[in-house]
Amino acid sequence: VPRYKVTIEYDGSGYVGWQRQSCGRSLEQAINQAFFRFTQTRCPVVGSGRTDSGVHAWGQVAHVDLPKRYPEYMVRDAVNAHLRNHSINIKEVICVDPDFHARFSAIKRSYIYRLYNRQTCPPFERGRAWHIRYPIAVDAMQQCANVLVGTHDFSTFRDSACQAQSPVRKINGVHFTQNGPVVTLTITGQSFLHHQVRNIMGTLNLVGKGTWTVDNFEQAFQARNRKAGGPTAPAEGLYLYQVDYP
Amino acid sequence: VPRYKVTIEYDGSGYVGWQRQSCGRSLEQAINQAFFRFTQTRCPVVGSGRTDSGVHAWGQVAHVDLPKRYPEYMVRDAVNAHLRNHSINIKEVICVDPDFHARFSAIKRSYIYRLYNRQTCPPFERGRAWHIRYPIAVDAMQQCANVLVGTHDFSTFRDSACQAQSPVRKINGVHFTQNGPVVTLTITGQSFLHHQVRNIMGTLNLVGKGTWTVDNFEQAFQARNRKAGGPTAPAEGLYLYQVDYP
Repeated sequence: VPRYKVTIEYDGSGYVGWQRQSCGRSLEQAINQAFFRFTQTRCPVVGSGRTDSGVHAWGQVAHVDLPKRYPEYMVRDAVNAHLRNHSINIKEVICVDPDFHARFSAIKRSYIYRLYNRQTCPPFERGRAWHIRYPIAVDAMQQCANVLVGTHDFSTFRDSACQAQSPVRKINGVHFTQNGPVVTLTITGQSFLHHQVRNIMGTLNLVGKGTWTVDNFEQAFQARNRKAGGPTAPAEGLYLYQVDYP
Repeated sequence: VPRYKVTIEYDGSGYVGWQRQSCGRSLEQAINQAFFRFTQTRCPVVGSGRTDSGVHAWGQVAHVDLPKRYPEYMVRDAVNAHLRNHSINIKEVICVDPDFHARFSAIKRSYIYRLYNRQTCPPFERGRAWHIRYPIAVDAMQQCANVLVGTHDFSTFRDSACQAQSPVRKINGVHFTQNGPVVTLTITGQSFLHHQVRNIMGTLNLVGKGTWTVDNFEQAFQARNRKAGGPTAPAEGLYLYQVDYP
């Protein structure tokens, strides 16, 4: 059966997250249902990884096996037609090798975290950025972020429910950019621990607002203990931006 | 009584437009109600101009007379608290001279019109840009747009319901910028005719898609006849961006 690589954009606001839960609608279910309506067969998608409730995507990737071969654009347009009542868009569909696996073939993942740093939040940014009223020191946050690059024990930023075997992860890059009130963190690595990006952002924010020094941040990171870290930043600022394959 | 200048951002999607209508909720009403809840007196806002149903604002300006003097930040935050169920944000409140008038004191208005030019529309852009699937020629649209600068008879782009006395308006500038799939038109003038920007955009798009040449556009403009122009572009791409005062 032909396998397809599907690149997906979604506004995660109204969803319980990527994965099916006991109640509430999940992104995975909505997409599976759309594929079912198109093919009239059950063809469950396999995502590159889960995203939490409220987390968005500009480039989630999944693979799916379809009962027969269709033109790529037809899969994209037909599934999008069945997703029209959802805040989900199939951006691209490509026919791939049967051994392509959205999760296990991935070599790099990029997330972005958006802050909106102004006294009031414009309606266009509601649910799509972490609104921060007080002025934040982006340079100090970048200084801290530099420390994260490389292979480290990220226990300080690991959720207690995280099921990964090891707290060691490799971060390829962490960069802040600023465009007026929009401050964007881009973070790239092979894979991430549960809540790792949101815990990093929540802790960086302590430095951004001046509660912590850069030294405090480094000490917390070296403590390798979740209790030493700052709070978890809200889901609404986080976007799965890109998943790379060989 | 003290007069305040109020700068307002809104997502116009769920509204019948700025002005009250026989049915549906208007932006003006929602804002008046929030001021009423804050001051416990009727203090109707006066806008710089109307916006159509579905049109957004990054910088609508209104003035309002309050029964007594309040700190500016308090007006902003209190009214925003009463607007929390609306996609409306009071960005700034400034106490002004009693002869300041949001409509009559305005010397310049800027609108932006956003196109999203890609095969599929991301969920983040739904209702916030005109989604155009076919590739558009931005350079050709800019060439046409240059012809509009200056004082001209804009009858070709004037809605039949327009109540202005004269079809003559002065356009200070019309510029396209492109950032990936986002194509943005910025247009500045002292004042605009009813549907003028949307009719200009809808006609420019005929050139962008290759249906019309630049010459066709100029001929239509010179015809001074609405029937010679192209269709009205959808409301969802239009934003009242800024209103300037002396």
